[in-house]
Amino acid sequence: MPMTNGSLSHISQPGTPSLLRAINERSLLEYLRTHGPTSRAQLARASGLSKPTVSQALASLEQAQLVKAVGQSASSKGGRVAILYEPNPEAGYVLGIDVGRSWVHAAVANLAGHILARADQQNHAQNASSLVAFISQLAHDLVMNAGLSWSQVVHAVIGTPGVLDAQSKRVLFSANLPEWGKQGLLAELQAAFHLDLSVENDANLAALGERSFGWGTDASTFVSLTVGTGIGMGIVINGVLYRGAHGAAGEIGFLPFGLNEAEEQGAVLSENYLGMFEEATSAEGIARLARKHSLPSSLSVKQIFDAAEQGDPQALAVIEQEGYHLAQAVATIAAVLDPELVVIGGGIGQRIELLRAPLERRLQQLTPLRPRIVATKLGADSVLLGAIATALETAHNLVFQHYFNGLS
Amino acid sequence: MPMTNGSLSHISQPGTPSLLRAINERSLLEYLRTHGPTSRAQLARASGLSKPTVSQALASLEQAQLVKAVGQSASSKGGRVAILYEPNPEAGYVLGIDVGRSWVHAAVANLAGHILARADQQNHAQNASSLVAFISQLAHDLVMNAGLSWSQVVHAVIGTPGVLDAQSKRVLFSANLPEWGKQGLLAELQAAFHLDLSVENDANLAALGERSFGWGTDASTFVSLTVGTGIGMGIVINGVLYRGAHGAAGEIGFLPFGLNEAEEQGAVLSENYLGMFEEATSAEGIARLARKHSLPSSLSVKQIFDAAEQGDPQALAVIEQEGYHLAQAVATIAAVLDPELVVIGGGIGQRIELLRAPLERRLQQLTPLRPRIVATKLGADSVLLGAIATALETAHNLVFQHYFNGLS
Repeated sequence: MPMTNGSLSHISQPGTPSLLRAINERSLLEYLRTHGPTSRAQLARASGLSKPTVSQALASLEQAQLVKAVGQSASSKGGRVAILYEPNPEAGYVLGIDVGRSWVHAAVANLAGHILARADQQNHAQNASSLVAFISQLAHDLVMNAGLSWSQVVHAVIGTPGVLDAQSKRVLFSANLPEWGKQGLLAELQAAFHLDLSVENDANLAALGERSFGWGTDASTFVSLTVGTGIGMGIVINGVLYRGAHGAAGEIGFLPFGLNEAEEQGAVLSENYLGMFEEATSAEGIARLARKHSLPSSLSVKQIFDAAEQGDPQALAVIEQEGYHLAQAVATIAAVLDPELVVIGGGIGQRIELLRAPLERRLQQLTPLRPRIVATKLGADSVLLGAIATALETAHNLVFQHYFNGLS
Repeated sequence: MPMTNGSLSHISQPGTPSLLRAINERSLLEYLRTHGPTSRAQLARASGLSKPTVSQALASLEQAQLVKAVGQSASSKGGRVAILYEPNPEAGYVLGIDVGRSWVHAAVANLAGHILARADQQNHAQNASSLVAFISQLAHDLVMNAGLSWSQVVHAVIGTPGVLDAQSKRVLFSANLPEWGKQGLLAELQAAFHLDLSVENDANLAALGERSFGWGTDASTFVSLTVGTGIGMGIVINGVLYRGAHGAAGEIGFLPFGLNEAEEQGAVLSENYLGMFEEATSAEGIARLARKHSLPSSLSVKQIFDAAEQGDPQALAVIEQEGYHLAQAVATIAAVLDPELVVIGGGIGQRIELLRAPLERRLQQLTPLRPRIVATKLGADSVLLGAIATALETAHNLVFQHYFNGLS
């Protein structure tokens, strides 16, 4: 809603761009972003601003290359043509990086969200510093390969396991990445990247990727469950990521699990805590199940799933047990959160076609609350796409801020 | 934010109260409700409305007995006195009713939330119809005893176990109340009460009671865990009740629990589902634990807690086990929701002073996520007070609507 000019003009010096002007230009830009090519007259009608104000704003935005003319349309009044404008997608670029224990995925996208280049490399780093160096090098190469200079990158979002603790600026609960929880990690990343960046929990990014590019169009309240090397969950409530009071919402790797068994065996499954869901259900848990069912320990998780697909009875028994474990998690999530949808992804979660039958069967035994269960629409890319989506939100603001600060 | 008069005046006929007038008078009333006795001049300053507009609004509201003059204050200008106004707390009344398996609690309050009378009676009803008749009679007696007529009651909120299914208008998952889940229950309640009423999950009301009158002033994102005859949880996120996609959020009675044990014994603990949290932890679960520890089966749950308080080792073992069960629920809730606070109430939950030590000890073994755990500030009244708080929100709207419809 544009304000009338009088209400704020007294706070701006002559010649200084006013807050009002910022509000108007920002909202015109947002309108162009969400509505596609639009003429000045259409913008004036939609915004309630006068045509001269719209013209002036567009001229300034165009000069700064935040907006560009993209063609002409016949105007409503007898054949006269109108110039159409859209945001300049090349006014800035963002980086998204998905840092996992086995792989690092990275992509660079323009402001319209089009991915210009991506890189996928195995992660062999043995400690945090070499991992920082590795992903920073990967990112710099990627940007160069896309034909861009590093200074054109406006914002980067790095997804990793764990929870960024706002107070200590450390990443907690990221046991899968060696030393990733150390003091000063964020500063080290900042120094290596030398640009505006943020670190976000990978399961949260997967949920945000799903929201922006996947199941988010079907459901506004859902969880995204990632099952792979680790276990994670992102929670979207009414279209917004729910982080919890300390950023630890969805850390379901810590669900207490198989307690009786753990106690009976007199064994503490976890290094630190009695039976945890992550250990039972992640890739490590599958390997344990495979040993229990006398499968060769050389088999990878993928090979076990492939064998089950071929009908191997031992492999099928492993998958069945894994499906039961997931059912227990889904029953728990349903009892607490009652989501519309449970979206399952991650290396293991993507094999939902095999897991679904035992999962659904067990769920029927466990609970009357049965949310709809679906596979991610984004395959292995949900964290990466979530990082891009999140980086874009920040980048739109930064690009405009930078332009506007340059005006005065 | 008041609108200027011009913007809406063209839609109202002369002599017809405009939407604008409704907005202005509603916001003046709300201001009085939240700020206490206020003069006309203060109202004009705070609202931005002109003094004549404020005077006219107050006159109309006063005539309808929605507002009353409550005294005078020295005005700022040399000794002249100003009349102070406040909302008339007797402009309407609300009923709150907490329907449990063993007891029914009811209270009637005025619009300021002051409770004028309350009733607490044991529930002996064997089926839904006799329970409807019982609570309706209780409510009518209560209103009469408060010196009010039934027509002065604006809204009633009835809290019960279970989830009101909006589509079927049935109460699901209310096994503790015989037949309460039957078709047409809501219509039967409506017919017996003959007033505007709503049915809400009791654990949700407990959370709303806590929000309005208890821990809600300390935390904006918390859960309220009720442990008694049944188990329930209400979730408040940023000060707002979170219901989930189908109203079943917080139905943690359905948490899968003690699965291994249940399977080993070849026994399905629940009638319908494999091991459920409610059966393990509610009053029934305590009775089962007591049998396991060879306590006389004649002991009530209260007597078991009392015996533990006296140092009885068997009773203490029961309490310890119950504390362990609660720890498992708290660990689960923390992993999914990461709340600031876990507020524990209900018949069993109120004995937190005995349960806390084993609960906290077990939690340390289970998880690094440890939310602050506190006892309800509202004792046994959290559901009742939540019903009153919820009924008041609706009543404020209804009373104003009724007044305003009467103007034209």
